[in-house]
Amino acid sequence: MIQNDTIIALATPSGAGAIAVIRISGPEAIAIASEHFESVSGKKLGNQKSHTIHLGYIKEGANTLDQVLVSIFKDPHSYTGEDVIEISCHGSSYIQQQIIQLFLRNGCRTATAGEFTLRAFLNGKMDLSQAEAVADLISSDNAASHQIAVQQMRGGFSNEIKVLRSELLNFASLIELELDFSEEDVEFADRTQFKELLKRIQKVLQGLIDSFAVGNVIKNGIPVAIVGEPNVGKSTLLNAFLNEERALVSDIAGTTRDTIEDEISIGGIGFRFIDTAGIRETEDIVEGMGIKRTFEKIEQAQVILLLVDGPQLVSGSQKLRNTVLDFEKLKNKNPQKPLLLLINKADMLSKDDRLQINQHLENVHFISAKRGIGVDELRHSLLNFVNTGALRNNETIITNTRHYNSLLKALEEIEKVQFSMKENISSDLMAIDIKEALYHLGEITGQVTNDELLGNIFANFCIGK
Amino acid sequence: MIQNDTIIALATPSGAGAIAVIRISGPEAIAIASEHFESVSGKKLGNQKSHTIHLGYIKEGANTLDQVLVSIFKDPHSYTGEDVIEISCHGSSYIQQQIIQLFLRNGCRTATAGEFTLRAFLNGKMDLSQAEAVADLISSDNAASHQIAVQQMRGGFSNEIKVLRSELLNFASLIELELDFSEEDVEFADRTQFKELLKRIQKVLQGLIDSFAVGNVIKNGIPVAIVGEPNVGKSTLLNAFLNEERALVSDIAGTTRDTIEDEISIGGIGFRFIDTAGIRETEDIVEGMGIKRTFEKIEQAQVILLLVDGPQLVSGSQKLRNTVLDFEKLKNKNPQKPLLLLINKADMLSKDDRLQINQHLENVHFISAKRGIGVDELRHSLLNFVNTGALRNNETIITNTRHYNSLLKALEEIEKVQFSMKENISSDLMAIDIKEALYHLGEITGQVTNDELLGNIFANFCIGK
Repeated sequence: MIQNDTIIALATPSGAGAIAVIRISGPEAIAIASEHFESVSGKKLGNQKSHTIHLGYIKEGANTLDQVLVSIFKDPHSYTGEDVIEISCHGSSYIQQQIIQLFLRNGCRTATAGEFTLRAFLNGKMDLSQAEAVADLISSDNAASHQIAVQQMRGGFSNEIKVLRSELLNFASLIELELDFSEEDVEFADRTQFKELLKRIQKVLQGLIDSFAVGNVIKNGIPVAIVGEPNVGKSTLLNAFLNEERALVSDIAGTTRDTIEDEISIGGIGFRFIDTAGIRETEDIVEGMGIKRTFEKIEQAQVILLLVDGPQLVSGSQKLRNTVLDFEKLKNKNPQKPLLLLINKADMLSKDDRLQINQHLENVHFISAKRGIGVDELRHSLLNFVNTGALRNNETIITNTRHYNSLLKALEEIEKVQFSMKENISSDLMAIDIKEALYHLGEITGQVTNDELLGNIFANFCIGK
Repeated sequence: MIQNDTIIALATPSGAGAIAVIRISGPEAIAIASEHFESVSGKKLGNQKSHTIHLGYIKEGANTLDQVLVSIFKDPHSYTGEDVIEISCHGSSYIQQQIIQLFLRNGCRTATAGEFTLRAFLNGKMDLSQAEAVADLISSDNAASHQIAVQQMRGGFSNEIKVLRSELLNFASLIELELDFSEEDVEFADRTQFKELLKRIQKVLQGLIDSFAVGNVIKNGIPVAIVGEPNVGKSTLLNAFLNEERALVSDIAGTTRDTIEDEISIGGIGFRFIDTAGIRETEDIVEGMGIKRTFEKIEQAQVILLLVDGPQLVSGSQKLRNTVLDFEKLKNKNPQKPLLLLINKADMLSKDDRLQINQHLENVHFISAKRGIGVDELRHSLLNFVNTGALRNNETIITNTRHYNSLLKALEEIEKVQFSMKENISSDLMAIDIKEALYHLGEITGQVTNDELLGNIFANFCIGK
């Protein structure tokens, strides 16, 4: 898997900006860059120290391609652990392309997706879960997922797993040794200590496995179904959430605007709003199919909001009766899920209107999405549905399905070992289970790996990382 | 105009990439960055040398925002001439935003468009035409405009103008001195040398002014009208140009694809293709209006291509007769403009077909856009319409309308001075004209300037440059 050639890619987003950064990594990086770089100071790149920056021109023969800054990072003190050159050039696609092509013609190869980070992993600059955290970090778009990715990138739970794994490895070799001397019936591995270790491992694994439910929510957002007919104020409500959040967390405009319809960050947690139509019973076949789809969508949600138009609700008894039926039906079909009934446009309701509604419906939330009334309370209600206790206590949280699966398998093996200990089952069977546990723990940190696994992980990276 | 606060902006394009670069410039740049940066080595940023890079974490209190590389550039050895910090962080919009906001809360201000380059100009790091070249460089999308921008950024013609201007300034002060001693009728300024200087200046200015025609073409592309009915093969022709160019200049896909319909680079020169409908005479009012619009579009073009479908042309005499009429009409209405008649799908024509066409139409080009037949010849024909002699000879070319206007005004004043010399008009009138010439030459390099002018120039920059 280890490739020893020199790779190049654009590291910054494509498109127009003030500057762009092109990254070159590999044994020939400095030599190749040096050949096409004319320093303003007249000095040669090859003689420069690591972590220094040099102003000059990228040249192809007499032709100047651009004025650039070149940063040097020397093996092993670089991101990849190899010699790395970063060229900071002017931000035109044309220039980026010209420079990359120049180096492609002169000994570089285009990097594949995630290849810089793959090399960092292969050269021992980071373990596999840290490498995965880099991708998570780049795609993080809210405070919670960002915090988890940063923690994981800094070592996070993988350090703990590495320590536990090496302790387990220690016992494994002692038990193997016992097997070699099996006829003499010696015990090199202290059974009391070993039991204690298994208990610790079990506790850590179980904790991490439990955290996945929260982690999954944080990474992928909480699906919230909004059940409501057209024009009851769904977009206005999403906008109200968004504006409030904006005022709270940001004064730089324009970063999440285009996703307003489906995903909104509230208190650092992502909420995915699933828009659904009404759920009124009907005998019309086509409409009936629509309702079936609506219920399927609601199935996927963790929280259900039934949004109704307040003034319409009090305009006739039929409307009110239907809403009561809808509410009951949603509740019966989804007994486990939090269900909130939101009466929108509450600013247009009189006291009597509210009384009338309260007589028929319990636990309603009167809101005005337009005027921001009740929106803050709603935010709190939504956040309360998430078990963010772990997050607040800075506990480790697992977000990666691959880690989750390996943890589950490792735990299963550890429990088998515990069972063998208890039932006094022979050490050679136990040794097999320990090996399996070691394997699955190693998968998380990348101490155990294979090309296919690495291929799958790094294919999800962007090129240039 | 000079502002002494510390500014911050994202320097790389917004959007997802492996990394992003945030730039901070101003007297407090290093102090502010230092306060929120925890170096891996434990060293303080403030004590580090210019042009060095440091790995560490951006922190807000105990909270880690990201692992970053920080580059230090110390006043005056930076782009702006001030202390500059560049933070290379992970390429998520969320992280960029968090880091920028952290620094906005701690003493930085968001940079306005072009403010980094404006500061570079105000601090004497580059003259005004060089600053303008930076913007040109970023927006350059073909070899010719890129080459001109690089040349201009490296000093190019503005150095020459600076030298001439200082020589002229010298004479101006001698002539002013003469005016002080006017009663004594002395001549401090050697009239022969002065005439020689004026002649040199005139020649340089005239050369630069003449180059603007070429420069304009290079910067803005050559407008080419394609007159042709639907399905005669316009897109196929543009694709054929593009593919050929791709094969020649690029093996990285996907950079110009989205502009294929309107602008294509051929031999390093941009061609803007203006798609027009047929121009057949009609009595229908609505259709007649369409034809009028077509002729207006053709007016804007510098080259006209009449593209017809070969097999259709020989399918009936009416079609052939109409094409002859169209060609004559276009020629009569645009006697000055190059007009090419292209017979497409020529691979489907027999020898007899071609003879028949040649009998009625002179100077036709038989092509097959689909099979690439005749496309190369067409490229050469298009390039020949551009006077690229200057470009090939590496002469200086003016592309900036502002420079062009100042050069025209300066030349006018120089010619007035020459006239005064010839007609022996009094020195005090001549002195006024010399001052005007000095003023307009100074405008180009920025030696003479004002806030409004600077405002106009830098407003066209992107933020972060």
